[in-house]
Amino acid sequence: MQRTLKVAAAQVGSVDRNADKNETVQRMVKLLEEAISQNVQLVVFPETTFTTFFPRHLFEDPAELEKYFEQGDDITNNESVKPLFDLARSKKVDIYVGYAERTDDGRGFNTCIYYSGNAGKVISKYRKVHLPGTKEPFANPDAVNQLEKRYFEPGNLGFKAFRAPGLVVDAAKKDTASTDVKETLGKGDAIMGMLICNDRRWPEAWRMYGLQGVELIMVGYNTPYNAPDLFGFRNPMTPEQAEKEAYYHHKLVMEANSYMNACFSISAARAGFDDGKYDLIGGSAIVSPNGYTIAQAKGVDDELVVAEIDLEDCRQGKEKTFDFDRHRRTEHYGLITSQTGVIEPELL
Amino acid sequence: MQRTLKVAAAQVGSVDRNADKNETVQRMVKLLEEAISQNVQLVVFPETTFTTFFPRHLFEDPAELEKYFEQGDDITNNESVKPLFDLARSKKVDIYVGYAERTDDGRGFNTCIYYSGNAGKVISKYRKVHLPGTKEPFANPDAVNQLEKRYFEPGNLGFKAFRAPGLVVDAAKKDTASTDVKETLGKGDAIMGMLICNDRRWPEAWRMYGLQGVELIMVGYNTPYNAPDLFGFRNPMTPEQAEKEAYYHHKLVMEANSYMNACFSISAARAGFDDGKYDLIGGSAIVSPNGYTIAQAKGVDDELVVAEIDLEDCRQGKEKTFDFDRHRRTEHYGLITSQTGVIEPELL
Repeated sequence: MQRTLKVAAAQVGSVDRNADKNETVQRMVKLLEEAISQNVQLVVFPETTFTTFFPRHLFEDPAELEKYFEQGDDITNNESVKPLFDLARSKKVDIYVGYAERTDDGRGFNTCIYYSGNAGKVISKYRKVHLPGTKEPFANPDAVNQLEKRYFEPGNLGFKAFRAPGLVVDAAKKDTASTDVKETLGKGDAIMGMLICNDRRWPEAWRMYGLQGVELIMVGYNTPYNAPDLFGFRNPMTPEQAEKEAYYHHKLVMEANSYMNACFSISAARAGFDDGKYDLIGGSAIVSPNGYTIAQAKGVDDELVVAEIDLEDCRQGKEKTFDFDRHRRTEHYGLITSQTGVIEPELL
Repeated sequence: MQRTLKVAAAQVGSVDRNADKNETVQRMVKLLEEAISQNVQLVVFPETTFTTFFPRHLFEDPAELEKYFEQGDDITNNESVKPLFDLARSKKVDIYVGYAERTDDGRGFNTCIYYSGNAGKVISKYRKVHLPGTKEPFANPDAVNQLEKRYFEPGNLGFKAFRAPGLVVDAAKKDTASTDVKETLGKGDAIMGMLICNDRRWPEAWRMYGLQGVELIMVGYNTPYNAPDLFGFRNPMTPEQAEKEAYYHHKLVMEANSYMNACFSISAARAGFDDGKYDLIGGSAIVSPNGYTIAQAKGVDDELVVAEIDLEDCRQGKEKTFDFDRHRRTEHYGLITSQTGVIEPELL
């Protein structure tokens, strides 16, 4: 039995601070059209795709900051971004897309949604749990800030896996009325999970989805390099070294966490050179449950990375090496949930 | 300030089923002497180093099985293995070594100990938590078994980080009587943790140590390839592919988990071609907290892999990207400790 799916990461290149949102959305529409022409069923867009990665700037004026947020609990009918969702619905293609969310009651989150073209609506929302950076700007005026903790609250929706309706049609599922997990896992529609950027470096985030039988994890990201104070902690690196290392760590965590949870992953970069000043890595990729990168972006511009995947490839890992039921020993994992920070080991 | 340490992985090549244990220990002594001649302070030996990797065999005769176990709660004075510990004590070098443990009250564990040459005694013991394989032998008579779940109980000591006395002498520590974690972490003797083989594929195991501020994780392993039923689950591989993949996954999990916990790691293989029939990978390695392999074994025979490391290199990761206190959100990690196996996500 095969459970194949054609998927894509839609990498989006440079988006300047004063970019026109309608133009950015048109670039995304163009990528989506290209995906549709290739019969892709699911397209993953980056983190905060509609604007530049604004948490690198300190905004003193609240009104200026607000321009980077998408307003409301449901953004799919917001004028400037609507064309993307309309196209997805009309062509029955699914999309993951990240944006800065201003909720109806005024709260700020770094959010992504899963819009099902088949269902014609948002079927899952995720808010970034692991916000990097600081609340306060750096003292060094040349430093590039990372003010996510200033502009966003940590995500409050947890890690909820979901099935995307109609994404994998499987006759076997429809024939059974079983509600036994062992019977229904690995059948039917894909089991999916969403993360955003820095989350991908946190094995807890992946494992939360792994424990829900996830077959495909989607991650949008903005990953800077070559910025004062970003990488100059102890061993200052050249821009070339910093770039190489940022790519290396991205690939490492995507491959290892996909392997250790026996799931596919799709990562999509907001890449390129923003404002002629800020460098972001590309490296959008599709990774197999065996931990290999099977497709990868070539550059840092707008680019579609496509692969046909078979969810059945998750089965070997889930039933052998990473059969959680047989191998995990939760009685020894206590600190992971009882303790946020580091406790010192008992001194001898 | 530097906190440097010269460390080694002592890879041990082929050990046949009927190998003389005294001869095997002499090979280990020779590796330890080589390390001492290079002023190495800590040597990591493999998993179950004193014998062949016997869980691949089904033993019908309990007396035959028992020959592969080291008897007693403290093995350092057992006649055949004593020369190794005597040398470590006399030369004040520390060792990690793995063996099959038969406790005083008759229980079986896959165990490793940390013997402090400085203290002249065992200062920490770890028993493998993530036992791979099955209790029952494979039906296929040509299959190579993995009967760890038959011969061992899951480890019952948890993941307890410890400081090795005298391993890093640091004046700053001695000047302070502070018991504040923030004051004493990153100073004084190295904070260490031990894992065994398959544990290295489980991010929970690494994180338990990470949450204790670990700076160096040691892992002994036996990793087979090219054995019927071991890798032939769905996409049968050639022996060459299986070998390549086993190395790839080993390197991937050592690098990624070291990076995600901002610690060094040392892994030591029982490698080579046992009984002219069973292939085991080499790949013993030392990995930096930044996730790079900085030294690696060249072959599959007895081989010492040496590096000088500076524990200060852990600081950047622990204080920035992986500052657990600032970034972890335990309120969203519940399933990791509440749930052993997979639960199905809520159906839409």
